[in-house]
Amino acid sequence: MTGHHLITVEALFGRVRAIFENAGVRAESAEAVARTIVAGERDHCKSHGIYRIEGCLRVLAAGKVSPDAVPQLHDSGKAVIEVDAGGGFANPAFETGKAALADRARQSGLAALVIRDCLHFSALWHDVEALAEMGLASLSLCPSYAFVAPAGGKEPLLGTNPFAFGWPRPGDHPYVFDFATSVAARGEIELHRRAGTPIPEGWAVDEDGEPTTDPNAALNGAMLPFGGHKGSAISTMIELLAGAMLGEFMSREALDFMGGGNLLPRHGALIVAFDPQSFAARSGRDPLAEGEKLLTVFGAQGARLPSERRFKARQQSQTNGIALTDAEMDQLDRFEREGLAALID
Amino acid sequence: MTGHHLITVEALFGRVRAIFENAGVRAESAEAVARTIVAGERDHCKSHGIYRIEGCLRVLAAGKVSPDAVPQLHDSGKAVIEVDAGGGFANPAFETGKAALADRARQSGLAALVIRDCLHFSALWHDVEALAEMGLASLSLCPSYAFVAPAGGKEPLLGTNPFAFGWPRPGDHPYVFDFATSVAARGEIELHRRAGTPIPEGWAVDEDGEPTTDPNAALNGAMLPFGGHKGSAISTMIELLAGAMLGEFMSREALDFMGGGNLLPRHGALIVAFDPQSFAARSGRDPLAEGEKLLTVFGAQGARLPSERRFKARQQSQTNGIALTDAEMDQLDRFEREGLAALID
Repeated sequence: MTGHHLITVEALFGRVRAIFENAGVRAESAEAVARTIVAGERDHCKSHGIYRIEGCLRVLAAGKVSPDAVPQLHDSGKAVIEVDAGGGFANPAFETGKAALADRARQSGLAALVIRDCLHFSALWHDVEALAEMGLASLSLCPSYAFVAPAGGKEPLLGTNPFAFGWPRPGDHPYVFDFATSVAARGEIELHRRAGTPIPEGWAVDEDGEPTTDPNAALNGAMLPFGGHKGSAISTMIELLAGAMLGEFMSREALDFMGGGNLLPRHGALIVAFDPQSFAARSGRDPLAEGEKLLTVFGAQGARLPSERRFKARQQSQTNGIALTDAEMDQLDRFEREGLAALID
Repeated sequence: MTGHHLITVEALFGRVRAIFENAGVRAESAEAVARTIVAGERDHCKSHGIYRIEGCLRVLAAGKVSPDAVPQLHDSGKAVIEVDAGGGFANPAFETGKAALADRARQSGLAALVIRDCLHFSALWHDVEALAEMGLASLSLCPSYAFVAPAGGKEPLLGTNPFAFGWPRPGDHPYVFDFATSVAARGEIELHRRAGTPIPEGWAVDEDGEPTTDPNAALNGAMLPFGGHKGSAISTMIELLAGAMLGEFMSREALDFMGGGNLLPRHGALIVAFDPQSFAARSGRDPLAEGEKLLTVFGAQGARLPSERRFKARQQSQTNGIALTDAEMDQLDRFEREGLAALID
């Protein structure tokens, strides 16, 4: 490919980790953040790939994330494990709590991990996939920034609140979904704005609460939840469970605290893990074999499972390497060499 | 009102309970089923009100529900409480497990109630509302009958799988939603068929997987999930968590077992309860007061909370009584007098 470079997953991981270490991020945190970012790029999920590096550096430059925070595990011995991220990134906090969460879910049947006070770039699939690889089903929820109007409303109140779920599959990639509870991601509207193209109907309302296809009006107005009042209700549930219930920020407070939505939001996160073997034990059935009866028949009617494209892309990246453009390679070079000074306002 | 009769909530409850007792249902079960049905009618939720009596009697007449099953509580001491409904209705099984679920959630932070082998008419709001009145947040999920094609597919595979959530509100009705993960309820398509009117676009596909507005073609084809691939993913999650994970039927197996979708489905159910006070404790914040910061501002922008209409209807019913038509009163008389013999094929 002209203008493209192939880089192995491992090499890209090394480079991204180095960028964060050079920017002053504690080694374990740099590694956890880099692992998630490279996994996104590897899976051709560009919106959560190396594109995210700049956002992470900007929040470092603004002094709104703690580069040397060491996540603190609090285990009361109940079914809820807590990790204080201490104003650091969410990824190392999840890594800190993951094993304790899995152990507790196996002991108790289900367990929850509460992450407090973290900076989040909402790649929740990475966490639920990790738990699925440990044989656990899980839900992962967090608020974000208040950019979305509730159904029937016209002003931003809810976040784009991601909702992720993972389910283990024997001998196969897990069943994983991870999506925003808004119709579209904010970044998609931004791309339309830059391209000067209208957004589809149903994505947003303007400042007066009227439907709009103008990306500028949408960004100044409010985005809309997916699935009408049902998606709006789910988004509200996420505010309550992953914000209010934890005593952490909801999306409106995150927006106020960060003084606008240009940087990564700061808030908490909730992960609930279930041990299928424990839940099914009295039935005498194998829950994962039961799950396969459903998941293996989607293809026969032309339907796709949520992460099929991601897993295909992953295989391709692992076999052939990841293709990056000249501009992307240049940016990696610049970030690694210049650190936060490479950020252009 | 001409042709209408006003009946108090208590009087209607007594009548519905008597119908089930006369039909041979064990007293405690008759009471639990009647309580849920009357609550639906009281809240002007006609689709889950006295309309459901006939369906319950039909499943009794077909010998597909056990009228005298005594739900059995199994408490392993872990965070999962189980109740074997023994082929009886779901409502008494929930009543049997409710207190243990609430206690365990308060002890552990969160807990789950598994209901096994029950006949369900999917009024999940009743359960999450009861838990909210005990100060707990909760999720309630169950499969149903395989009438819904996954997004991108064309054949029935998923159920209309209801999804309910409850959150306690100090001094107010709880925040409650309960909806099918299909675009529309199957009953709504049936009403269009009877009226000879087309269904809206996006509700269903025909037997060839083509979009249709013909209710007959829709009933022979497949319904569609709400919210496109996102709703489809959530519906799949419900099959896995509330079917496969429990070792209980998923929606396709329920349809096979019952030999068609005319009777109430038989399967399991999953309720997850969270104690907000326990989750928020280390934050020093009051989780319910935090929740109010979100829930009290919907109205200012013209948005409604999911159950507002229900709670208004409830107040009206409690003050003025419930208005039933002549036909509805006649049917209650007939069901009470004749029992299962009142069923006309």
